[in-house]
Amino acid sequence: MYDLIILGGGPAGYNAAERAGHAGLKTLVIEERALGGVCLNEGCIPTKTLLYSAKIFDYAKHGADYGVKFGSADIDHAFVVERKNKVVKQLVSGVGAKLKKAGVEVVSATATIKERNAEGFVVVAKDKEYVGKQLLIATGSSAALPPIDGLADSLKSGFALTNREVLDLKELPKTIVIVGGGVIGLEMASYFNSVGSKVFVVEMMDHIAGPVDREISKMLQKEYAARGVEFILGAKVTSIKDKAVTYEKDGKTVKLDADYALVSIGRRPRTAGIGCENIGLKLERGAIVTNEYGKTNVPGVWAAGDVNGKSMLAHTAYREGEVCINNILGKKDRINYNSIPSVIYTNPEVACVGETAESVKEKGLDAKCETVTLKYSGRYIAENEHGNGVVKVITDNKHHNIIGLTMIGSYASEIIYGAAMMVETEMRVSDIQKLVFPHPTVCEVIREAMFM
Amino acid sequence: MYDLIILGGGPAGYNAAERAGHAGLKTLVIEERALGGVCLNEGCIPTKTLLYSAKIFDYAKHGADYGVKFGSADIDHAFVVERKNKVVKQLVSGVGAKLKKAGVEVVSATATIKERNAEGFVVVAKDKEYVGKQLLIATGSSAALPPIDGLADSLKSGFALTNREVLDLKELPKTIVIVGGGVIGLEMASYFNSVGSKVFVVEMMDHIAGPVDREISKMLQKEYAARGVEFILGAKVTSIKDKAVTYEKDGKTVKLDADYALVSIGRRPRTAGIGCENIGLKLERGAIVTNEYGKTNVPGVWAAGDVNGKSMLAHTAYREGEVCINNILGKKDRINYNSIPSVIYTNPEVACVGETAESVKEKGLDAKCETVTLKYSGRYIAENEHGNGVVKVITDNKHHNIIGLTMIGSYASEIIYGAAMMVETEMRVSDIQKLVFPHPTVCEVIREAMFM
Repeated sequence: MYDLIILGGGPAGYNAAERAGHAGLKTLVIEERALGGVCLNEGCIPTKTLLYSAKIFDYAKHGADYGVKFGSADIDHAFVVERKNKVVKQLVSGVGAKLKKAGVEVVSATATIKERNAEGFVVVAKDKEYVGKQLLIATGSSAALPPIDGLADSLKSGFALTNREVLDLKELPKTIVIVGGGVIGLEMASYFNSVGSKVFVVEMMDHIAGPVDREISKMLQKEYAARGVEFILGAKVTSIKDKAVTYEKDGKTVKLDADYALVSIGRRPRTAGIGCENIGLKLERGAIVTNEYGKTNVPGVWAAGDVNGKSMLAHTAYREGEVCINNILGKKDRINYNSIPSVIYTNPEVACVGETAESVKEKGLDAKCETVTLKYSGRYIAENEHGNGVVKVITDNKHHNIIGLTMIGSYASEIIYGAAMMVETEMRVSDIQKLVFPHPTVCEVIREAMFM
Repeated sequence: MYDLIILGGGPAGYNAAERAGHAGLKTLVIEERALGGVCLNEGCIPTKTLLYSAKIFDYAKHGADYGVKFGSADIDHAFVVERKNKVVKQLVSGVGAKLKKAGVEVVSATATIKERNAEGFVVVAKDKEYVGKQLLIATGSSAALPPIDGLADSLKSGFALTNREVLDLKELPKTIVIVGGGVIGLEMASYFNSVGSKVFVVEMMDHIAGPVDREISKMLQKEYAARGVEFILGAKVTSIKDKAVTYEKDGKTVKLDADYALVSIGRRPRTAGIGCENIGLKLERGAIVTNEYGKTNVPGVWAAGDVNGKSMLAHTAYREGEVCINNILGKKDRINYNSIPSVIYTNPEVACVGETAESVKEKGLDAKCETVTLKYSGRYIAENEHGNGVVKVITDNKHHNIIGLTMIGSYASEIIYGAAMMVETEMRVSDIQKLVFPHPTVCEVIREAMFM
């Protein structure tokens, strides 16, 4: 008998488990693959490991601009993948150690919710039954795989890849077609472009990077187009087979031969097969319905992370897991979805929080958009011979507080949390003007933008 | 007749001038060297240009750890210096353009305050008299040069260098002795170490990095000691002559032969020769006395930047200049010296804001110090094969707000502004726990520290 059973040991699940364990709840985590989930094993962390190696390789290419000359430079993809595995292993074992320290039990199995009985919720894993007074569902998401002609077979043959398999390629493709120009697609496009593959990005929408501010996503596209990535927008993929991806665009059908096709068109909540129906859990478009407290429609059952289909980011999952535990412990807590930052780890990086020029228009908000060049930063100029980075700030016209910020350029990933704080705490322009930013930094431009 | 005459076109002066000009004040800036001051011409910006080249060179050395192999790597110091000059030129001309746009007049000359008369303050520059209703003194600082035996001659002969000359060396020294282990000394030690010079740092105190948290400054020292920099602490330099630096330590006298000696033992406010005495300005230890509004003891005379001897950082100067202009314009404004961040751009970087373990002890504050490894960050592990970075958080035990933060590790320079916001807005631990930080980032560890 457990106080809490958590289905899934990814960012939502493992963080919730740790907090619950430390708070004295008898907690069980059931995870069918590795602790850390997609984020740690097949997502955020492995991609960053690859991208960092690519960045070092990029430096070699541009070193001469900064007075550093390289005789030759080579990237050893097999080594990079091996190192990635080492980093992942280290972090996964770190998660295990944390859970152990918090007194959390971990079972490695696929879990199914069987029923609710007088004692609590019954979960079956490896033919064994576990009972928990409360349940937290954190089963995450998996790659969306629509019924495209040939896709199923191509996945089997190894021609088509998801975020999982693409990270373990033994050798570099000469040509790769990336279907879907969202975060995953763009980060992998960045990697393969840096290391010398010919990269095509085929995207159904007329723009890349999904909800990112359009002005910025266009800049990112232009940057990578200049480096040789071919973007095919407004295109519908009709088949993935025979070592080729076929798409239709403007009434024409085009076939792209390739070594591999990466399918990164979105993520789907993992709710199938876990027994949601056995306890009457409410789903919408395949996602478990939760409120800002992490509550589902069934008292005692909580859900956090990608499985609720809301923000589908590791750090949202992490916070949602905490929110659930706090509420389980009787400490009222809620998550504010308006101030969650997000990052694309391309080179240059893109990072954003809150409203964009487009969302402001859609919602009919009375707001001002100001785009400011990063060339106001002496550090940016010192470190970017050919950089065109900007920060775009969205300000509410009535209350003069910051409601959104998007930037493209160096360090964006590490700068954006401060902007998220500004949005979350509803800081006004006049408050930010009074803050002292260190000089010389790239983040200074945020302050400079307050005087425009 | 001007509304405002500003002595000095560095960060305090040029920023104040720009704000004043845009606010409609008839403004004159008198600068004897180049616009941008020490920061732009001989400080922050040129050093960052050099250090970025060194960083790329460092990547080449460690690339193999990340799967990137280099045939050979060379740094072309002359090219690096040339590029530095180009960057500085671009930024100086940017400052000029900004001032022009704001309608500010600029005179290139040495200025002396002659007197106060019925009309205002009379300033003489190149035998011409200018009258201003108000004065802003922003003459900055210069390298402290104590009466060490042989120093004056060594400066003439070119053996001894200040922050100015060291940036224009035509070729790399085989050996350089750096006298003074503060920010300037450490950044230059970092550069010369990276590019292959033998570096000695001779420091009078028993620790480097001045007021930086001692635990962190020791880590920085250890890091550079492992790379071959020799630190000689608690040593008194007795002569700088005949291509050698001689010091006394523990009763012994040691002579270090070198190609150059960099003297970086501190900065002195530039108040000599500008005519402070002609209007009765109050000085203390050579610095113009100001309050938190930038006011001096003489009504109508303001001072901002290094000349007030307070914080001696470019970004403090920048903000102080603004504070003066706001108060001149009747918009009450004050600067909070407790939440000014500072950065050492070594590799790894060190950044801090607010209290340290030492200052807490000195002031007798009731506070908790928590040191947390950056290895909690997946990104940090992905990007640092042998990193030992930490973040150290100081929390007030009564109000549970953050009163200080120091970190050593990648991106510290761009992360610290957010910590400064936390200190400035007196954020509590529980507030920060509810913020969502992007994953995977190094800054996440700040949030993680809130749960320790």
